[in-house]
Amino acid sequence: MALTESQAAEIAALRAQSAPTARPTVPALEALLYTALPVLDHGFVRVIDYMGDDSAIVQAARVSYGRGTRRVSEDAGLIRYLMRHRHSTPFEMCEIKYHVKLPIFVARQWIRHRTANVNEYSARYSILDREFYIPAPEHLAAQSASNRQGRGAVLDGAEAARVLDLLREDATRTYDHYVEMLNEDEAGAPRDASRQGLARELARMNLTLNTYTQWYWKTDLHNLFNFLSLRADAHAQYEIRVYAEAMTQTVEAWVPTAAAAFRDYRLGAVTLSAGMLAVVRRMLGGESVTQPESGLNKREWTELMTSLGRQG
Amino acid sequence: MALTESQAAEIAALRAQSAPTARPTVPALEALLYTALPVLDHGFVRVIDYMGDDSAIVQAARVSYGRGTRRVSEDAGLIRYLMRHRHSTPFEMCEIKYHVKLPIFVARQWIRHRTANVNEYSARYSILDREFYIPAPEHLAAQSASNRQGRGAVLDGAEAARVLDLLREDATRTYDHYVEMLNEDEAGAPRDASRQGLARELARMNLTLNTYTQWYWKTDLHNLFNFLSLRADAHAQYEIRVYAEAMTQTVEAWVPTAAAAFRDYRLGAVTLSAGMLAVVRRMLGGESVTQPESGLNKREWTELMTSLGRQG
Amino acid sequence: MALTESQAAEIAALRAQSAPTARPTVPALEALLYTALPVLDHGFVRVIDYMGDDSAIVQAARVSYGRGTRRVSEDAGLIRYLMRHRHSTPFEMCEIKYHVKLPIFVARQWIRHRTANVNEYSARYSILDREFYIPAPEHLAAQSASNRQGRGAVLDGAEAARVLDLLREDATRTYDHYVEMLNEDEAGAPRDASRQGLARELARMNLTLNTYTQWYWKTDLHNLFNFLSLRADAHAQYEIRVYAEAMTQTVEAWVPTAAAAFRDYRLGAVTLSAGMLAVVRRMLGGESVTQPESGLNKREWTELMTSLGRQG
Amino acid sequence: MALTESQAAEIAALRAQSAPTARPTVPALEALLYTALPVLDHGFVRVIDYMGDDSAIVQAARVSYGRGTRRVSEDAGLIRYLMRHRHSTPFEMCEIKYHVKLPIFVARQWIRHRTANVNEYSARYSILDREFYIPAPEHLAAQSASNRQGRGAVLDGAEAARVLDLLREDATRTYDHYVEMLNEDEAGAPRDASRQGLARELARMNLTLNTYTQWYWKTDLHNLFNFLSLRADAHAQYEIRVYAEAMTQTVEAWVPTAAAAFRDYRLGAVTLSAGMLAVVRRMLGGESVTQPESGLNKREWTELMTSLGRQG
Repeated sequence: MALTESQAAEIAALRAQSAPTARPTVPALEALLYTALPVLDHGFVRVIDYMGDDSAIVQAARVSYGRGTRRVSEDAGLIRYLMRHRHSTPFEMCEIKYHVKLPIFVARQWIRHRTANVNEYSARYSILDREFYIPAPEHLAAQSASNRQGRGAVLDGAEAARVLDLLREDATRTYDHYVEMLNEDEAGAPRDASRQGLARELARMNLTLNTYTQWYWKTDLHNLFNFLSLRADAHAQYEIRVYAEAMTQTVEAWVPTAAAAFRDYRLGAVTLSAGMLAVVRRMLGGESVTQPESGLNKREWTELMTSLGRQG
Repeated sequence: MALTESQAAEIAALRAQSAPTARPTVPALEALLYTALPVLDHGFVRVIDYMGDDSAIVQAARVSYGRGTRRVSEDAGLIRYLMRHRHSTPFEMCEIKYHVKLPIFVARQWIRHRTANVNEYSARYSILDREFYIPAPEHLAAQSASNRQGRGAVLDGAEAARVLDLLREDATRTYDHYVEMLNEDEAGAPRDASRQGLARELARMNLTLNTYTQWYWKTDLHNLFNFLSLRADAHAQYEIRVYAEAMTQTVEAWVPTAAAAFRDYRLGAVTLSAGMLAVVRRMLGGESVTQPESGLNKREWTELMTSLGRQG
Repeated sequence: MALTESQAAEIAALRAQSAPTARPTVPALEALLYTALPVLDHGFVRVIDYMGDDSAIVQAARVSYGRGTRRVSEDAGLIRYLMRHRHSTPFEMCEIKYHVKLPIFVARQWIRHRTANVNEYSARYSILDREFYIPAPEHLAAQSASNRQGRGAVLDGAEAARVLDLLREDATRTYDHYVEMLNEDEAGAPRDASRQGLARELARMNLTLNTYTQWYWKTDLHNLFNFLSLRADAHAQYEIRVYAEAMTQTVEAWVPTAAAAFRDYRLGAVTLSAGMLAVVRRMLGGESVTQPESGLNKREWTELMTSLGRQG
Repeated sequence: MALTESQAAEIAALRAQSAPTARPTVPALEALLYTALPVLDHGFVRVIDYMGDDSAIVQAARVSYGRGTRRVSEDAGLIRYLMRHRHSTPFEMCEIKYHVKLPIFVARQWIRHRTANVNEYSARYSILDREFYIPAPEHLAAQSASNRQGRGAVLDGAEAARVLDLLREDATRTYDHYVEMLNEDEAGAPRDASRQGLARELARMNLTLNTYTQWYWKTDLHNLFNFLSLRADAHAQYEIRVYAEAMTQTVEAWVPTAAAAFRDYRLGAVTLSAGMLAVVRRMLGGESVTQPESGLNKREWTELMTSLGRQG
């Protein structure tokens, strides 16, 4: 990620501003505010604004007039109770706004989370920058043999080198042609006065899916936790997981109590079906259960044994 | 509206707190923060928190890194353009949270706006206060003869007095019976040790719909404008319109440029159908159009003439 | 539940209609279509329309052109996999529409599920019927001592009788006064020509929360499952649970494979936190774990032991 | 658009199926069901299922038990009233499901409409077809000089030919490299046994944005009208407008009364701001108003004069 000088200056100016407020304020998140946290080779996540803190969750749950006089431990207990029992509405009372720069194929996965507000940089209106995601060699993985949505081993040297060449050359060439078709210089004047220049809304179709785009993305804490539980998960594609991890870091600065409850009751949790639970009860009763007599199919059995840290 | 001493003290404590922040801050809204704006006889609206300001709308629309160096007039022009052309997503980048106390029949109308976050005080979990909405005599209106959803003239003295007596007596009696069925004193101990006391989740069903409830309600500026355009409208029921008016006051303190654009292009606007527009064009061409030859039905014709300030 | 003659005739007419369609059709649900399934003393649930079936879930998940040639067992396996791994979007491809008659206090709980379409009978526009929910004596429960949101033992005879008297008398009296204030007969003419009659939008505030209302309510299968997982749960209030149970019956007729997967992986499932899972692993390893050394607090420990069918 | 033989056979099989149903059924839409309506060079829109008809809007608005005995003209009047006054919830009671094949850059614009259910063909899981959108020469437009989001004149011959060559060559080459990197034949076996093959979730990033994708997309009639009012509009990009036009055709077959009301009150309507309305009133009063004395800025003035069919 390389910010231009004027972008860095704009960010510095925002970070330097200060005003008194009576709103809930979180110093640990103020320290991160506006800063671009680097993700992938050219991407970033920046916290632009936030509303609420751990106490705001508690106040909403109690529909209270003020902060009340309860102890911090009571507040934490309530937050953990709300998380454990999936009482989601108090978490919706906190809101956060990000500025994100990300490859288009990641953006397409991300946008499937519909309960958020989005303003994306418009390639219909403006010209995209010459920036593409090229994976680091250690992330160039083969197709998984067992999981159609997963990755296997890292590609060997020669094959990896060929892939990187193709990705780089194709992105560069298609971008060069995009610029040629547009026929606009930085000031918007024609590069070649003999040509009209293709409309931006058409020229963009020549770009590859690893081209970077950017957006403002705003959501509430409950929906952010849903996003993170799917995208910070080990089954998520690496290229979106790293965004989820950077965002997790900002959530931990922002609402440490809720973030800890999320880790315990959502991220680290497993859900056992009625059938799985029955097997666990039999095992705890001293019975030695095998898959064929478990009532579970093979896939469920393997999932259960993995959760229990046992070999099937 | 009468706050208890401890409620007033809690609000005062929140208003006295101050912390430095690098977030967008709006002094005019800070001045209103946490204060209970009285609505109806016992209700209120309080701004609990907010995110963003007029500039935040512009920054999201431009997906910008900072505040940019444009002039204020350019920002205002962009906001007005976005409002006029219903580009709603930049307005979604501002968020506001209210604490509202309101009669249950108003809450039931309000909740039909689904794009918001809500935490309501639970009468399943807690006991509601002895507070009911009783209209002021000048708002005791007869059924409209022409509009099944509207009000006509104010009720005459004797009939009004009888209505007020009924409303007061019924609300009081049903509340007294609610308390009797609950059989709990303020500390949660039985009032009458010989009785078990009915579950709160059941006893509440004896309350009348003018009993006050309260909730935290949070939404973004775009959806708030939708709410206000319906509920601050002359066709809205008076008892919800006064809430919309109090909220309009907070929006004008918060995002004055967007609020002005909303007034011009939404609140004060009229939509003309293709057929209505054709009539206006004919009239501007000097033709004297009558309803039968207008192509509009009577109701549409009346609506158009009203918009144009003419007699049909 | 007593339908009027004309209502029963209208329902019979709808049930008698038949047209050929190329859409997915489910005979077991057609058999229930339009019929009012009685709930509580005057309420009902009616399926008005539906879109999709078990196969529609599979086709959407595969984005397929037709039904494909896979075996039924493959389809069931896929549906169970989608449910287990919370791939929710294919379930959103089925839609169902209900007509529900329910007490207002139940409607207020129900409406908290925001991802649905609702048209409620308007007491601003029309006059509500004289129908109130009065619990059967066996559902008149005392407040739970241990759970602020729960019920305890059934009320004893004298106290129960007093509660029923109060509920009946108050609902009847407030309804009579509602009618008096309205001053309208069935044809809309004044009952007492010397009075103007209070506007409907005001008179309704005198009704108690056990008055019945009704609405059309439409949602997709994923959100319906969310609704049922909360409202068909043992912790839900009895008066909404019976609606959820009637709807579960319609879902089992409609999408039997998805409904079975829902029962196994959602309704009958338990979620174990990271800490709970660690305890289960220790116990399976032969260790005898007690609460103080479990790392769980008392409430979590009790929840875990209950799930495992053990005494703490 | 060229369907494979097996796709055509699957569609034919669906169209041939027939079952009796008591649900509302629309013969004109049944005639279109499942058929692929061609859009652009390889895309299509197919109606997969629908719920409700014109009468269903009316029944929901009335929360009725049956079809009632009103005349068709009364129903039409109510639908037009609901549309004119933006009572949107009854329109939400109709639902439609499409299967759409479309270029990725169109899909990215489309997905900004969040109130819909979507299942997209997964390029993480499967391999995309070799199909790209290449505009017909008459749609290869230059950038508009006056509107940054618009198109100007059609490109001249030589420039157009060059653009078409670039688009074709780049899409073909990047697709060929996609296939090479995947190293899978149709049966999933390696094309070149000496290579591992890049994971599908990575290889897809080399595709250009005119590659076709497909999805199931389901929404209610109210949200569909919102979609169509933006995307069937003259300001929409041609490549999405043609999809909106194909869908409009299906809506006219499905709910002709609602579709006609939509045309009159939404598509053909104009909204006049308070300031614009004041100008119209002055003009109707015989005054000759000019922009400087109108109180409108130049852009608003031009918009108003265009609406009124006058030269500014």
